[in-house]
Amino acid sequence: MATCNLALIGFGRVNRALAELVDQRNDVLEKECGFRLRVVGVSDLHLGSVMSPNGIDPRALTRAGSEKGAFSKISGGHAAPRTEQVIKQTPSDIIEATYNDGESGQPAISHCQGVLAARRHVITTNKGPVALAASALQGLVKENDVAFEYEGSVISGTPVIRMAKTNLSGVGLNGFQGILNGTSNYVLDRMEEGLTFVDAVKAAQEMGFAEANPTANIEGREVRLKVVILANELLGASLKPADVKLCGISPITASDVEDAKKAGEKWKLVGSASRDEDGSVSAIVEAKRLERTHPLAEISGVTNAIAFQSDLLGTAKVTSPGAGRIETAFAIMADIIAIHRGRTASTKTGAA
Amino acid sequence: MATCNLALIGFGRVNRALAELVDQRNDVLEKECGFRLRVVGVSDLHLGSVMSPNGIDPRALTRAGSEKGAFSKISGGHAAPRTEQVIKQTPSDIIEATYNDGESGQPAISHCQGVLAARRHVITTNKGPVALAASALQGLVKENDVAFEYEGSVISGTPVIRMAKTNLSGVGLNGFQGILNGTSNYVLDRMEEGLTFVDAVKAAQEMGFAEANPTANIEGREVRLKVVILANELLGASLKPADVKLCGISPITASDVEDAKKAGEKWKLVGSASRDEDGSVSAIVEAKRLERTHPLAEISGVTNAIAFQSDLLGTAKVTSPGAGRIETAFAIMADIIAIHRGRTASTKTGAA
Repeated sequence: MATCNLALIGFGRVNRALAELVDQRNDVLEKECGFRLRVVGVSDLHLGSVMSPNGIDPRALTRAGSEKGAFSKISGGHAAPRTEQVIKQTPSDIIEATYNDGESGQPAISHCQGVLAARRHVITTNKGPVALAASALQGLVKENDVAFEYEGSVISGTPVIRMAKTNLSGVGLNGFQGILNGTSNYVLDRMEEGLTFVDAVKAAQEMGFAEANPTANIEGREVRLKVVILANELLGASLKPADVKLCGISPITASDVEDAKKAGEKWKLVGSASRDEDGSVSAIVEAKRLERTHPLAEISGVTNAIAFQSDLLGTAKVTSPGAGRIETAFAIMADIIAIHRGRTASTKTGAA
Repeated sequence: MATCNLALIGFGRVNRALAELVDQRNDVLEKECGFRLRVVGVSDLHLGSVMSPNGIDPRALTRAGSEKGAFSKISGGHAAPRTEQVIKQTPSDIIEATYNDGESGQPAISHCQGVLAARRHVITTNKGPVALAASALQGLVKENDVAFEYEGSVISGTPVIRMAKTNLSGVGLNGFQGILNGTSNYVLDRMEEGLTFVDAVKAAQEMGFAEANPTANIEGREVRLKVVILANELLGASLKPADVKLCGISPITASDVEDAKKAGEKWKLVGSASRDEDGSVSAIVEAKRLERTHPLAEISGVTNAIAFQSDLLGTAKVTSPGAGRIETAFAIMADIIAIHRGRTASTKTGAA
């Protein structure tokens, strides 16, 4: 029976959900994928740290309080974070390092660098390290012969990056259009029901769909990072966020929405990229009025969707639930499974 | 530079499209996947046969006429089919064997058996061998250490089987609902516009969406085979077609459609399966009235869609173009790529 040792840098809502999955779904994982997960270390700036080479009881983690230093109450735990020790001194195969603080991608980028330098596989669901530092990180990946996976950075649980890269190879992918932010899509839905922009944002906040400061969602900066990731990953571009034109939904007025409704159309915040005739890739994030028959027109509420355009399949579309904590934790699980399978293969190669 | 040698049993519209892809897209394939395709043999009951260990010019194949014995005009070709020689005497790595004659799955099943017994990988886009003979064929697969791939048997080009099996591992898949037949979906759409059932079927025939004898499509027997394949593949069931209850769209009247329309609902032919509490899988194909918010309600025309239900992701949906010849040929291409990647890995293992 194979065991995969996991360490977590940061213990917010997603990694807490991941600990729940370790607690509840190891039997399913073993049955479907042939291995079990064991958490061997956690470090969180606020909660503190726990390390155990034989595995930490996941239930002790999921039941930990949210007060400062809460991990000190777990057997073997400490009130202080010990990020470096968790990265270097636990027998971890894979380290999840999503924690970030704002839009700089830090400290997630440094954590990913530290993990790769320590020759451990790294997973992140944070857009920052992927959109802002992918090429530097990929250098470390090659140098240290490890993996860097980030399926959850785009539409959380639904593994679109891996699907497009593995199952659409050879299809001649030449662009995509997506509804990649549940908050702004929910706001536009509520405006169709007659709310003003300001009231619709308030409603999204009350529902827990928008943060106290919803600017990054509303202005499309969050979508822009996702578009950069998808364009670079799937279309071979080398875009930076500043290369992507940005027009968020805040200029949309109640009467704009009303006009569209009368014409049977819908306003949506669309992130898209396409390969031009000269082979270059251009990308944009913009609030657009879509005809009823547009593949993204019917995407409602906090649902996400990506329509892929290709030479051989025309338009194929994936629609999925938005960014829930369990869905995002599943993205990490999917990355772990992919690494596990990849590693199995490379172990065999190594033995040859 | 790796080359993959391909032989084709049957040369209907899909394999002709595949020959077009070999002609036009080998450079893309080499760039994206690291190998080129070469057709080394073709046998067709009507057109005849061609074999060449160094590769047949794909353009000679795509330009061949459709008259009986047309392959005799190609250099080295014969007016007679030579199925057994193509299977056993060409240096083929992979053989595509989709040709069938009716609903028995034959001769595609025998062809697949012959190919596997000759220790070649086999690909089919025919539902018959997969829905009716999968377990016998899987026995031959193990015995001969080769692959049996059939991504195109469900919704043609869009690789849903592989997506669900590889990228949704561990998600706790417990059911699916799909719109899996473009003909019946188109017929229902036209009935919403006011056509009678009979006129809507005629319209589908005129558009080339329905065959001269559209019974298998309209009655849902074609969808039933797809449901059997998906339930067995993705939910681990062992269903036979007779285990799946079937209620096609032919009993739906213009007034049924009108009633649904007034209520903001839509009639759809839905194929579904779910895992019950005792672990058993039940499946059904039925014309159903769907609420506007149902994930399949908005699927229009000849589009196909599958909504997957799972523990961790809720509902994730894939929408794709229907069964065009190029789309289906891409499914074969996707299978070839998967086999090529798998074989590379197993070659390495073998060397270990």
